[in-house]
Amino acid sequence: MRMSELSERSGVPVATIKFYQREGLLPPGQAVNPRQTAYADEHVVRLRLIRGLVQVLGASIEQVRHVVEVIDAPGLTVLEAMTRATHAIPPAGPDGPEGGSEVRSTNATSKLLIDLGLRHAPQSPHVEHLDAALSLAAEVGIEIDTEQMRSYVAAVRDVARADFDRIPWQDPKEAVQFAVLGTVLYEPVLLALRRLAHAEVGMGMSDGT
Amino acid sequence: MRMSELSERSGVPVATIKFYQREGLLPPGQAVNPRQTAYADEHVVRLRLIRGLVQVLGASIEQVRHVVEVIDAPGLTVLEAMTRATHAIPPAGPDGPEGGSEVRSTNATSKLLIDLGLRHAPQSPHVEHLDAALSLAAEVGIEIDTEQMRSYVAAVRDVARADFDRIPWQDPKEAVQFAVLGTVLYEPVLLALRRLAHAEVGMGMSDGT
Repeated sequence: MRMSELSERSGVPVATIKFYQREGLLPPGQAVNPRQTAYADEHVVRLRLIRGLVQVLGASIEQVRHVVEVIDAPGLTVLEAMTRATHAIPPAGPDGPEGGSEVRSTNATSKLLIDLGLRHAPQSPHVEHLDAALSLAAEVGIEIDTEQMRSYVAAVRDVARADFDRIPWQDPKEAVQFAVLGTVLYEPVLLALRRLAHAEVGMGMSDGT
Repeated sequence: MRMSELSERSGVPVATIKFYQREGLLPPGQAVNPRQTAYADEHVVRLRLIRGLVQVLGASIEQVRHVVEVIDAPGLTVLEAMTRATHAIPPAGPDGPEGGSEVRSTNATSKLLIDLGLRHAPQSPHVEHLDAALSLAAEVGIEIDTEQMRSYVAAVRDVARADFDRIPWQDPKEAVQFAVLGTVLYEPVLLALRRLAHAEVGMGMSDGT
């Protein structure tokens, strides 16, 4: 396909595509003749990835580059690539520990996770983010308790299994890309649904159902 | 307590507390003598609320003011106050529909929720946020399917029930404040746990457990 169709199918303006090309984020197209280059489905897929990262996360070009490099790296298993790529993308939301916050030790958070039976790598950046979130909740007087954490862990396990069921394993590169996008783009889905569920539980309380 | 202790217990610097006072976000203290004012636990609680909103969400003073007004409004039930306050706070994450995005009709999203059996107010801003998130996922080629949504809905219901179990209903004002803070501050907890659960499911796949 030509550049114009690539732009249309990916939803990314031509000027932006050219910028991504200069930044080395897109594989080169195939030269059909000196004045024309042909692009393929892989370019559409890649542009959608970039768009998702930039539009939802406000990811920087450097973050996008890192994710793209992981996806393109040879010799990684799909699971390794997923892990590395998602580690590179901070979750939407709070920036983690800030000036003035007393940060719990991530060891304490890791221990809590062990108590809850959640297998994890203690040095994972997600443990750090969890730690920052738990610290802030405790500081403003709404420390999360173990029972509540237990409910959260059970819930996210079900969500994670549903997420994995959707991954197109037959194509390793697409699988990694899907995992990266799903990690990021389903986060706001989960949060909006949680708020709707609060409203539902509240309605149930007020009308006695 | 004096201003210095209020600052220490809330984790908010004195200059910032004075700024919030000028903005009318804090109830006045009690004048002990012309040069000294006494503050109470309610001031600590209020400052923690403001800190939570500002630090996690980067909430504007106007957003904080709105939440505070709802909490202080007479004649609202706890559930009404919760609904109004949380509607005023957008979830962390994507800004919703942006230039170029084709937005699904929120009617379609509302219909999906009805199919899934999630009772909701169709005009809720959370339906709009959900709609924006689903649209973006679809546009970048990872449209969420009904089975996956079903898992998400079941999971957030469990989370919502666990959240409601924690609310201190005996004190209406504190209950609303807790609900507002919990809505916001437990969001990053949920997201960090989801990512950890992905890693756990991945480990299970790679070692066959």
